[in-house]
Amino acid sequence: MRYGFGIDLGGTTVKLAYFDEQGTLLHKWEIPTDTTDGGKHILPDIAAAVRQYLDSNRIPDSDILGIGIGVPGPINDEGIVNECHNLGWGVFDLHRELSALTGFPVKGGNDANVAALGECWKGGGENCQNMILVTLGTGIGGGIVIGGHILAGVHGSGGEIGHMILQRDEPEACNCGNHGCAEQYGSATGIVRLARKYLADPTCTSSLKQQDVLTCKDIFDAAAAGDGAAKAILEQVYSYLGQLTANLCNVVDPEVIVFGGGVSRAGQALLEGVYPHFQKYVFRGAKDARFALATLGNDAGAYGAFKLALNAFAH
Amino acid sequence: MRYGFGIDLGGTTVKLAYFDEQGTLLHKWEIPTDTTDGGKHILPDIAAAVRQYLDSNRIPDSDILGIGIGVPGPINDEGIVNECHNLGWGVFDLHRELSALTGFPVKGGNDANVAALGECWKGGGENCQNMILVTLGTGIGGGIVIGGHILAGVHGSGGEIGHMILQRDEPEACNCGNHGCAEQYGSATGIVRLARKYLADPTCTSSLKQQDVLTCKDIFDAAAAGDGAAKAILEQVYSYLGQLTANLCNVVDPEVIVFGGGVSRAGQALLEGVYPHFQKYVFRGAKDARFALATLGNDAGAYGAFKLALNAFAH
Repeated sequence: MRYGFGIDLGGTTVKLAYFDEQGTLLHKWEIPTDTTDGGKHILPDIAAAVRQYLDSNRIPDSDILGIGIGVPGPINDEGIVNECHNLGWGVFDLHRELSALTGFPVKGGNDANVAALGECWKGGGENCQNMILVTLGTGIGGGIVIGGHILAGVHGSGGEIGHMILQRDEPEACNCGNHGCAEQYGSATGIVRLARKYLADPTCTSSLKQQDVLTCKDIFDAAAAGDGAAKAILEQVYSYLGQLTANLCNVVDPEVIVFGGGVSRAGQALLEGVYPHFQKYVFRGAKDARFALATLGNDAGAYGAFKLALNAFAH
Repeated sequence: MRYGFGIDLGGTTVKLAYFDEQGTLLHKWEIPTDTTDGGKHILPDIAAAVRQYLDSNRIPDSDILGIGIGVPGPINDEGIVNECHNLGWGVFDLHRELSALTGFPVKGGNDANVAALGECWKGGGENCQNMILVTLGTGIGGGIVIGGHILAGVHGSGGEIGHMILQRDEPEACNCGNHGCAEQYGSATGIVRLARKYLADPTCTSSLKQQDVLTCKDIFDAAAAGDGAAKAILEQVYSYLGQLTANLCNVVDPEVIVFGGGVSRAGQALLEGVYPHFQKYVFRGAKDARFALATLGNDAGAYGAFKLALNAFAH
């Protein structure tokens, strides 16, 4: 049996996990992400954490098949990072640098794509080889797995599904400057935006109108309690998410679409809300894709990162 | 040197081509597609044509690495055809049947996807490994190549880009029953539809108003001759095609988008028309994709089919 590390590098913390080659998570821990000095301490800190773990557990280097790592920015299949603004990183060869620091082979991927690989391996898409992860958080992220491998894209921007333009005539602008991006309707922020617009109508009556601070959860809770306005708002959201997932399935034709991120805490209500709209919009050949919820939570990135290394280095 | 066949199976004719393993097309010919009796003569006819070619040229079977074939319907990576209505075919294992009839290994793909592989190998995407083919004909078809391999999809419906929904509020219905599919704006039929709507305005003056029968070519010709209405119509078309290609690139992040099909005979004018809209709509990471025209014409399917066989059987 061989072993390896799956590392999820975020802007605040680095999550490290030690796996056996069957994908059993044996140990996990965190270290802070030091973004000072253009992020130049991050890789040495990770290398030191890996070395310390091996030494204190008396694990020989020969047991280790490699290190997988997810980074919060674009990175291509060859490991070239193309600027991670929130780490202070520019353009460099991540594989070579982390490998030189640790002595182990390294395989990196974009964090959202790596989380998709994790969910596809051990989470909501378990036993699938072809999956789309739709991560509904503050924005919309995502990742695509085809034949068990991440669709990374030539510039490391594969799976950037949040900025698919669904509504050309949208008057409000998205953060990206365009109008009508999926993120404006289906993210937590987008859902609250649609709700504010809906509730601004003076003829609309809703329990939500009394709330000073409106959250996405409030809207799901009100809909579950029977509030008509909340239900109508969510129907709009579901329709846009149905269009997004249909447009994606027409391109990728996967086995499963997995919903993750904070909004997916709404659970089955979300899946059952979106699915009829998906069925309406999708072209016939891709109709059989099923819907599932992400199950790995914050560990998805570590699982996926280790699977990256397993795909690359275990023969 | 070894050799093989690339076969493009259409509803009217079967195009056969004989290649060397470097991809030189050595000979090509056609036989009619016999769709009687549920299409059951098609594969025996193909096998007989292959056998006759080998016999009359005294080519030993040991020279042949395999047969690649594009079929006009969904087929998955394992060769399971999932109904080709215009051939009369149901669900069956194409690889096994054609292989049993010929004695050679067989690899099949959907015809649009196979054409994309051909263009990626020897056409508009030559020397690329990651490409989207957008085929603008009567409808919009397409194919996606990632890492030199076709994105076939789990149900054989990968790359069905024509039914991406770009305009939710479109009042007219697409052939598929949905509203606002890309095909309604960017196909030859769609372009003429937009033109008729535009020209129906009584205040609009245009040389095109005098034409009884309006074709897509008429509109491009009038725009090239300076007709203001024709230019405005094409700006609408280009905007939708910019949105389509941007939405695709945000998902796939390819090196190149190749435009094929009848509408692409408009040439550089088409590319230069769509590109600024693509740049407006695409998310930043995928902005560097370049545009190109398809170059293989009706041979794209045969090239791609042989490349399928080469990928599968040449080691």
